[in-house]
Amino acid sequence: MSPEFNLIHTYFNRKTHHTDLSIGDDAALISVANQQQLAVSSDMLVAGTHFFADAPPYTIGWKSLAVNVSDMAAMGAKPKWITLAIALPHQDATWLEAFANGLFDCAKQFNIDLIGGDTTRGPLTINITILGEVSNGAAVTRSGAQINDDIWVSGELGSAALALAHLLDKISLSESAFNHARNHLQLPQPKLALGLALQDIATSCIDISDGLLADLGHILSASKLGAELDYAKMPIMPEMITEHLKPLVQQCVLSGGDDYELCFTAPKKNQETIIALSQTLNLPITLIGNTTADSELNVLYQGKPLSMHTKGFDHFA
Amino acid sequence: MSPEFNLIHTYFNRKTHHTDLSIGDDAALISVANQQQLAVSSDMLVAGTHFFADAPPYTIGWKSLAVNVSDMAAMGAKPKWITLAIALPHQDATWLEAFANGLFDCAKQFNIDLIGGDTTRGPLTINITILGEVSNGAAVTRSGAQINDDIWVSGELGSAALALAHLLDKISLSESAFNHARNHLQLPQPKLALGLALQDIATSCIDISDGLLADLGHILSASKLGAELDYAKMPIMPEMITEHLKPLVQQCVLSGGDDYELCFTAPKKNQETIIALSQTLNLPITLIGNTTADSELNVLYQGKPLSMHTKGFDHFA
Repeated sequence: MSPEFNLIHTYFNRKTHHTDLSIGDDAALISVANQQQLAVSSDMLVAGTHFFADAPPYTIGWKSLAVNVSDMAAMGAKPKWITLAIALPHQDATWLEAFANGLFDCAKQFNIDLIGGDTTRGPLTINITILGEVSNGAAVTRSGAQINDDIWVSGELGSAALALAHLLDKISLSESAFNHARNHLQLPQPKLALGLALQDIATSCIDISDGLLADLGHILSASKLGAELDYAKMPIMPEMITEHLKPLVQQCVLSGGDDYELCFTAPKKNQETIIALSQTLNLPITLIGNTTADSELNVLYQGKPLSMHTKGFDHFA
Repeated sequence: MSPEFNLIHTYFNRKTHHTDLSIGDDAALISVANQQQLAVSSDMLVAGTHFFADAPPYTIGWKSLAVNVSDMAAMGAKPKWITLAIALPHQDATWLEAFANGLFDCAKQFNIDLIGGDTTRGPLTINITILGEVSNGAAVTRSGAQINDDIWVSGELGSAALALAHLLDKISLSESAFNHARNHLQLPQPKLALGLALQDIATSCIDISDGLLADLGHILSASKLGAELDYAKMPIMPEMITEHLKPLVQQCVLSGGDDYELCFTAPKKNQETIIALSQTLNLPITLIGNTTADSELNVLYQGKPLSMHTKGFDHFA
């Protein structure tokens, strides 16, 4: 058995639960249930671009999968299978074991099978492709928003970006605030239960990976609408509420990446249902604005345009 | 629209043919036909490890997909969909256009839809996940070989490795021989028609990506068998036949990677069927040995053990 195979078998070949043929052949084999579409998404994480190369490997493993689960949540699809391709500069058993533990802890939480992939030598790069099931026609896409829909967001905004700003010495958070924010950056919790529940509630949905304005912008662009947001309503971490008008905080809240919250639109008649859902899931879901007939995305504060507008994160900006 | 989206839309968002929802949402949506399993495979190609960073981008695009199609061929599965994740050091329109042309020429040849993916900044790395359909239970795996099965291989062996050896100044090929071999290295032709036809003929199958001995070794390991091969029967490019006993040539033929031919086992009663198939497909298919009850993989030449044995390519060897 070659070293590459040893590596796969040692760290990545675990028991699967709903897979016909898993790791060890030219391809894995799975069966998609009747009346279900398969949702497919792929995210690549590169050291130095998406995470610090010296970040705890457990968190890299967790996050690599969590960001993909978040894409399934945004579609209202139930994730079931992943492939993992990973390029490593060298074999490091300690690193790999911790990485695998983070990956599989996330996989276990969401009942996902790792069914195949590739390991190779190269600059540290992780690519996960995720496959999930969604009932025929039930997926929540970006293009279904209607005029005068409410715009909602789960959890809190900007915390991951604030942690990154702290790590880059752009802001100084208290120890407790940083610890809170760092968890959002390194161990994001995809909002899968919410995403699945939104199938019959939301008209459109997206996960916030590149920042609220950029990602809501994708919904508006796909739905050919505009929006008006109330900055005073943005859910942010408690420690930052008194500083929410500082330019850097505004930037983190409106345009910080890596939040992996869900932003969705819904008819006003669904407000009570959504508030009840928030209580059932024990997850804040906040009404932050509404869609408009024009094509502009405006952020207001106390009725006036917020002075500073920034766009979301872009890897090639 | 952000630059990343421009990049995807400009080069990678093409018409699809059997996809419910393609590029542009959090996930793509596809429908797998009734009575079909989904075959899933993922290959990562890293500049400097799998290809020269300055190789013609058309060939990088072609090969990135071809190696994945080859995995489907080895399972007897019909490829239908891919996701593409690509990390690029910088945006280069000329490079990207040529890369996309190579990728889509291969996709067109095999009727494959590109349905999603990711583009990001980083060291040049390409990851394709491929999805294909195969009738329930009809996949040809690595584990089905029986004692005293014939061992067959398609096409010719070692040509890609010989081209690489020439590029690395380890051997000097004639211009015509190099041109021939370079096509095998840079524009490999996955043997999909053969793979699909083998469903009812072969007991096991693998594609030769890491070299004949290593990949046949995977079949033998999965099937708990040994094998005896006749080196004199190995199909090699005509220009090298007179030099086939040179150590470097032997190494390329037996252990050279990147061939993407199919190696398969079949009962002796299927010989005539396979010879007829070879004629139908206009593709050489050569009988190179047989499986044995022990667990050894022996290569003979004129009835005696070949002096030199090497193992297949391993990225972490």
